[in-house]
Amino acid sequence: MSVLVVGTTALDSIKTPKSENPRLLGGSASHAAVAASFFAPTKLSGVVGGDFPSKYLTLYKKHGIDLAGLERVHDGQTFHWSGEYEVNMNNRRTLNTVLGVIENWSPKLPGSYEEAPFVLLANISPSVQHTVLDQVRKPKFVVADTMDLWLNVALADLLRLLKRVDCLVLNDSEARQLTEDDNVVTALKKIHKLGPSYVIIKKGEHGSILSGPKGLFLAPAYPLKKVVDPTGAGDSFVGGLMGYLAAQKSGSVETNLRRALIHGSVVASFCCEGFGLIRTTRTKREEIHARVAQLEHLVRI
Amino acid sequence: MSVLVVGTTALDSIKTPKSENPRLLGGSASHAAVAASFFAPTKLSGVVGGDFPSKYLTLYKKHGIDLAGLERVHDGQTFHWSGEYEVNMNNRRTLNTVLGVIENWSPKLPGSYEEAPFVLLANISPSVQHTVLDQVRKPKFVVADTMDLWLNVALADLLRLLKRVDCLVLNDSEARQLTEDDNVVTALKKIHKLGPSYVIIKKGEHGSILSGPKGLFLAPAYPLKKVVDPTGAGDSFVGGLMGYLAAQKSGSVETNLRRALIHGSVVASFCCEGFGLIRTTRTKREEIHARVAQLEHLVRI
Repeated sequence: MSVLVVGTTALDSIKTPKSENPRLLGGSASHAAVAASFFAPTKLSGVVGGDFPSKYLTLYKKHGIDLAGLERVHDGQTFHWSGEYEVNMNNRRTLNTVLGVIENWSPKLPGSYEEAPFVLLANISPSVQHTVLDQVRKPKFVVADTMDLWLNVALADLLRLLKRVDCLVLNDSEARQLTEDDNVVTALKKIHKLGPSYVIIKKGEHGSILSGPKGLFLAPAYPLKKVVDPTGAGDSFVGGLMGYLAAQKSGSVETNLRRALIHGSVVASFCCEGFGLIRTTRTKREEIHARVAQLEHLVRI
Repeated sequence: MSVLVVGTTALDSIKTPKSENPRLLGGSASHAAVAASFFAPTKLSGVVGGDFPSKYLTLYKKHGIDLAGLERVHDGQTFHWSGEYEVNMNNRRTLNTVLGVIENWSPKLPGSYEEAPFVLLANISPSVQHTVLDQVRKPKFVVADTMDLWLNVALADLLRLLKRVDCLVLNDSEARQLTEDDNVVTALKKIHKLGPSYVIIKKGEHGSILSGPKGLFLAPAYPLKKVVDPTGAGDSFVGGLMGYLAAQKSGSVETNLRRALIHGSVVASFCCEGFGLIRTTRTKREEIHARVAQLEHLVRI
């Protein structure tokens, strides 16, 4: 089955003390769609400007990503984020953000997208997430990702969205902000009360926690010797997770979700090993399978 | 087989915004010995003053802990730590520390302790840890715990100790301090080069990582709805771990260690649910078994 991914399609310029990496392919939808494409047919809904390099279209196509829903505004500018890392690569600060064509975007899905069974509302404004959800019919499983920005500036829209999705994905500090609760177990219970049957809290190198009707699952992160750039790791995680779910021919979402988190973690680990999508797009399926097997061994009691 | 535990035997006075808890039983050896006692015969090496309440001796005895190596200095004062928690219970600050009888203590082990196969050098000065290690013959497995204080004031002694132990246990910030490395995987490799075949890095609510000759094991922490007082959780973890190892009638330390970490995590979870040792000492073996089974389920893929 296929995955529909909506989110940002961006250019990221990432400076470090040692290198400049201008105008890399970035954005939540780019990371999530490439990650999903390792497992299942993937449809992208996004918007880019006339400055979007054709080599990035070629890259999407190399991954078999359906671009019928990638809108192009020829006289507009692609969403562009610039940031800088500190020496130890742990802290990142934003230098500049140009919203460009994303600012007033209201996605119109091609007819071929409307029946997508797995819908991933990757990180973008909740209003865009609603607009996409309005255009799909009877999806089997809808996941929304979000970020602190939307908790700050679009909380009402986000809370309305939570009543329409099966699963919310957010990181631990966002979960604290949303629930005003420091304890992850009780925070999860509060988020379920806002709507979603499944909640996944991302904890970076400490893994993630899935909460669903059958209780909790504590998922590990793949331990990396070197993190080059964690930008997009969360998007890769949820993209890999959805791709894996869509690819399963048997079992329910409930029974497949644990293994889906493991696959998401593994794709995210590759993402962290290079700037932007550089390492992810070089990843071979066999490398993913090998790391999944390793990760399973690392947590087996 | 039995476990010998050396460390601090203390009185802890813990203030919170809502309550005062004066002169609780505390100290690394108290927490570790009680934790180990759930699984295996446990021998305590420690020192207390004339002010040490007899009810705490009764508590040790209730857990079957061998007190032949608990020295009593009748005209001395028991090591006493006073601390205060902030409103959210996440930050703790020390109000006062009275070293008392621990300051110049040089343990002398009773003959019955010398053959202990499992030796836990719980958190105390490396010089005391050396002194105990000098008095045991051919132990099967020696684990040392430590803390940032000893990295700051007794690094040379600690480095010398690392060449004499099978396993070092420390938390993530201590591992960074010891190795000057932010990455846990490469920090582990550096610690192995200092001596121990096994290294365990504790990450609090994020679980722990075991590194040994057969690679890594990512161990979960038991997810708690409410943390009352994390004081002693690390000591309970390593005590439970050693008690479990000592209780196994088959399998090598290597093959039993993964399950040992799970048992340690579970005892630590009970420790966090009450001030001092209040909840731990009320724990029944069936409660431990139930949480171990739950924790195994929470990480099963």
